[in-house]
Formats: sequence, C-alpha cells, structure tokens
Amino acid sequence: MAILVVGSVAFDTMETPSGRRDRCLGGAATFFALAASYFTQVRVIGVVGEDFGPEEERAFIRRNIDTRGIEHVPGKSFFWSGSYMKNLNEAQTLNTELNVFQSFSPKIPAAYQDSEYLFLANIDPVLQEDVRRQMPKAKLVCGDTMNYWIRDHAENLARVLKGLDVLLINDAEVKMLAKDNNLVQAAHKVLDMGPKALVVKHGEYGATAFFCDRSFPGEVVTVPFRAPALPLAEVVDPTGAGDSFAGGFVGYIASQPALTPPVFRRAMFYGSVMGSFAVERFGTERLQQLLPGEIEERFALFRQLSHLE
Amino acid sequence: MAILVVGSVAFDTMETPSGRRDRCLGGAATFFALAASYFTQVRVIGVVGEDFGPEEERAFIRRNIDTRGIEHVPGKSFFWSGSYMKNLNEAQTLNTELNVFQSFSPKIPAAYQDSEYLFLANIDPVLQEDVRRQMPKAKLVCGDTMNYWIRDHAENLARVLKGLDVLLINDAEVKMLAKDNNLVQAAHKVLDMGPKALVVKHGEYGATAFFCDRSFPGEVVTVPFRAPALPLAEVVDPTGAGDSFAGGFVGYIASQPALTPPVFRRAMFYGSVMGSFAVERFGTERLQQLLPGEIEERFALFRQLSHLE
Repeated sequence: MAILVVGSVAFDTMETPSGRRDRCLGGAATFFALAASYFTQVRVIGVVGEDFGPEEERAFIRRNIDTRGIEHVPGKSFFWSGSYMKNLNEAQTLNTELNVFQSFSPKIPAAYQDSEYLFLANIDPVLQEDVRRQMPKAKLVCGDTMNYWIRDHAENLARVLKGLDVLLINDAEVKMLAKDNNLVQAAHKVLDMGPKALVVKHGEYGATAFFCDRSFPGEVVTVPFRAPALPLAEVVDPTGAGDSFAGGFVGYIASQPALTPPVFRRAMFYGSVMGSFAVERFGTERLQQLLPGEIEERFALFRQLSHLE
Repeated sequence: MAILVVGSVAFDTMETPSGRRDRCLGGAATFFALAASYFTQVRVIGVVGEDFGPEEERAFIRRNIDTRGIEHVPGKSFFWSGSYMKNLNEAQTLNTELNVFQSFSPKIPAAYQDSEYLFLANIDPVLQEDVRRQMPKAKLVCGDTMNYWIRDHAENLARVLKGLDVLLINDAEVKMLAKDNNLVQAAHKVLDMGPKALVVKHGEYGATAFFCDRSFPGEVVTVPFRAPALPLAEVVDPTGAGDSFAGGFVGYIASQPALTPPVFRRAMFYGSVMGSFAVERFGTERLQQLLPGEIEERFALFRQLSHLE
C-alpha cells in the first residue's frame, strides 16, 4: 500500500568526527522516503528550488519513489548545516535557510489521493493539519515534530496530535511536550493528547513504543515495547536517523495486510534497522544503495542482539 | 552454587523526588547479596561498626545470607548520603564517611573457601585483588568499579581487570576506562584489558554485554546482547540499582549448571529484573521482601517488552 509523506527535501552540510560533506541531498521527507521505499510505494509532497536537478531527482527515481508531488519553484531549496563535533547525539545547527520552503503550501496530486498511509514529517503543524485534512480516508496517520513547534506553536500542534495514530518523537521532545521528566508519565500525558501510540526514539539506546487503551481495536496493549539500536563502532553521520527510523517503521506497516501488535513490534525493529543503516555513511548515501538481503540480515542481527533464544 | 561477595555494608541517607530516608541499610554488598539470594546461597565479606545491630543482621538472615564473613569492629559503619533531586540518573554525593571501612582488610572464613562464584563489588582494587588471590579456585569472577578508582588508581585496577571474567560498569565508566567516547570501541579496549565479557549498564535504557573471542570456551560469541530496562512511572530511589543488577546477574548464573550463551543472556534479563525491583522503593526495602513468583512474573514482562513474538 502506498505511503504519502509530506516534509522537507533539502540540502545539508554537516561536519562530524568522521569528516565533512557539503550540500548532500537531505531533508526529512527524503530520508523517510528512501527508507520506506524498500518496503512499499512512496509518494512525496515537498518543494524544491532550481538547485534541485536531475541528479537529485534520480536518487528518488532509482528507488521507485513517486516525485510528482515535489513542486519546483524559482529560488533555492531548503538548506541546513550542522555540526556533531561536540556531541554525536545532538546536532548543533550552524545555519538554516528556509528558502523556497518559506512559502510552501502542500498540494496533493490527484494520483496521490488513494494513499492509505500518511507520514507528516517535522514541518509547521499548520501544514501538517492542512495535509491531514486533504487526506480524510488515510488508514494510518503517523507524524513527527520538534522542540520549536512544541514550545512556540503548541495550539496548532495540539490540533495535529488529535488526528494522529502514531507520533514518533525523541525523549527530550516527549518530556517537553508533556512537561514531565518521567518518561512513562510523560508518554501517557502525550497519549492523552490524541495519538493512539507513541514511539519514543532514544538514539543509541533504541526506541520504546507506548500504547493507549484504544489502540489496535479489539486488542488492548498495555505493555510498552522496546526495540534496541545496533551498537556501532563508528557513527559516521547521525543526520536523518530519526526520519529513517520512521521510514522503516511506516514502510513495514504499509507492506503488511493489517496492523496487529506483532506487526507493530516488527515495525519497531525495521525502524531501528533503517536508522542503523542511515548513520553508517554521510547523508542518504547508505539508504540510496542497500543491497537485496541486507535489510533482512540486519533484522536477524537485531533479533540476536535482543532475544533470549 | 555459593557466591562470595566482598564489598560495603553500610548505612545510606538519600533524598529523591519521592521523599527522604535516613540511615537505611545499604552498601554494594548488601544490595548484591539480597538480589542474588533469590537465586542461590550468598556469603558476604565486609566490615561493620557498632551501629550495625540485630535488626540489620536480620535483613540478611531472613534471606538466608551467610553473614559469618561480616566482621564487627568498634566504631561506626560506612555511611553515605546523597541526593537525586537534580538528576534521578546520577546521585549527587553529599557526604561519605568511611569509618570502620577505612581499615578494612578482608578475611575469608574457612567455610567460604569453596565458593565457586566471586563478586568483587566496588571497593579499593587493592582489596579486590587481595580477595581474588585468596580464592584461586573460583569458577567465575565478576567485578565492579567506579570513576574514582579508574582515575586515580589505574595501575591497581589494571591488575584486577586481568583476573576478571565479567566486568559490570556503566557507560561513563567504560568510556573513562578506555579513554574512548564510542561505546563499542571503548568496550573492546576494556575487553583487551582482561575481562572475557563486559556488561555496560545504561540505567533506564537497560544494559549491553560485549564479548571477546575467548569467552565461553568452544563457542565464539561476537554479537553483543542488550537487555531492556523496565519503563517505570516512578523511580523512587535509584540507589543500589547497579549492585542489584549484578546480584540478579551473578545469582542466576550461579543457579545454573553451566555458563552457556543462553544462560548469559537470561542472566542479563534477571539483572535488569532485580534492578527494576530495587528502584521501586527506598534502599533495600523492596529486595528484602519479594514474594514467590514476582521475579518470574517480571521476567515474563521483560520478555514481552522486548521480544517480537
């Protein structure tokens, strides 16, 4: 089943202890789409400038990603630069240029209307709400957000949360959103805001899913589920790890006939698997060229890493 | 099979967001012994002062722990006070009074000589080495240490590490010991210092075991193993969580006929289980009174929390 993702398609410059890259293809929608493309059909809604050329386009096409929803407008694409020199777990943003993203108004092509899965990547909650409203029949709606929207756009974000099935954010964001420093209590406060499930990403420690009583109609799931992350001897570039997790997670769910608790759990593992690939190279390098078998091989490794037998 | 533990038997005063307790029974050897006592016979080597009375003694006796190795001397017992008000993940030490511990010289009763398992809790590496030397026939030797010994007593600690089968320390300690900020690389540097396996405790994120090639003779284990921690809505008091983990870990291994890779993995889970109980109440309260069935019930919960099916 097809996934529609709305979010940034951008250029990133980053420096990490492993080196530096200038103007790599990046953006939340890009990482998400590449990761999800290994599981199902992905359709992207975004906006780019004149610097987005055939080479960038090819990165999507090679993965069979539908780019008809990427609008091309005069000007420059969204640009971000950051450094991980002080802390590999948290980017220090050096520069953000919204450029053509500033006046982004998502338009959904007719060919995208039947998408059953929707991922609202980290963008202005007003735009997330707009896309959500244009896709009333979506079977599963997942979304992301960040500290900036939590702090300064709380009312708009609250409306988005009411329409979400699964919210995927990190520890600090959950605690900030709930104004509670205990993860479990914060998770339940966030679930009270609307999402039926909450996936909390812990970076190198994996991710934990929390559920509210009304998830998985007919089956009450109260025990959280934790997927490990792969201990890596070198994290080359953490950029996009969270979006790649979301891509693996939603991608796997969309590839399955129904969202059951076992499918949700395996989706958490596939999310971690795709996040582990993303950080092994700069930008989207690794996600652009996974070989057949590599994903299942790593999934098996994650099982070995965490299962008693 | 019996475990011999050497370490502090102490009184602790702590304040946490859940409240405050004065002069609870504590100390690394106490938490370890109580946790391990649910799995096998435990024998304690330590020293206490005149403030350690029949009530404290009973806490051990009720759990069938052998206290003949606890020496009683004139003066006051080791005392520690700390606060978790700023950070539940790291105690702020307010006061440490070594008292009778200052001149501690471990003596191993004849009745303890046949102990097959040895746990060297976090004490001066010179004393750890001394006990290790007095127990040349121990089948499995596990140990702990802390930043103070790593920083200021590196040479003494290096000799202890050479004699260890399993070292159990936390993330920050591994990185400090290896002088490397990447967990995987740090872990392998620590394994090169002597231990056959390294268990890294991540607090609320569980623990990861790393193995070197010479572990489990006949079976090469190269994939690390990660046990989750239980997401808790209230961490009442984190004091002793690491020692309780060690008690569950070594206790379970000692209760099994042989240390195989599956036994090691289950031991990691039992370690996390005992750590999760420890933090639910102040001091050793919870570990003193676990009911039959509670441990297996929580073990099952850990499996649900982390296993795909």
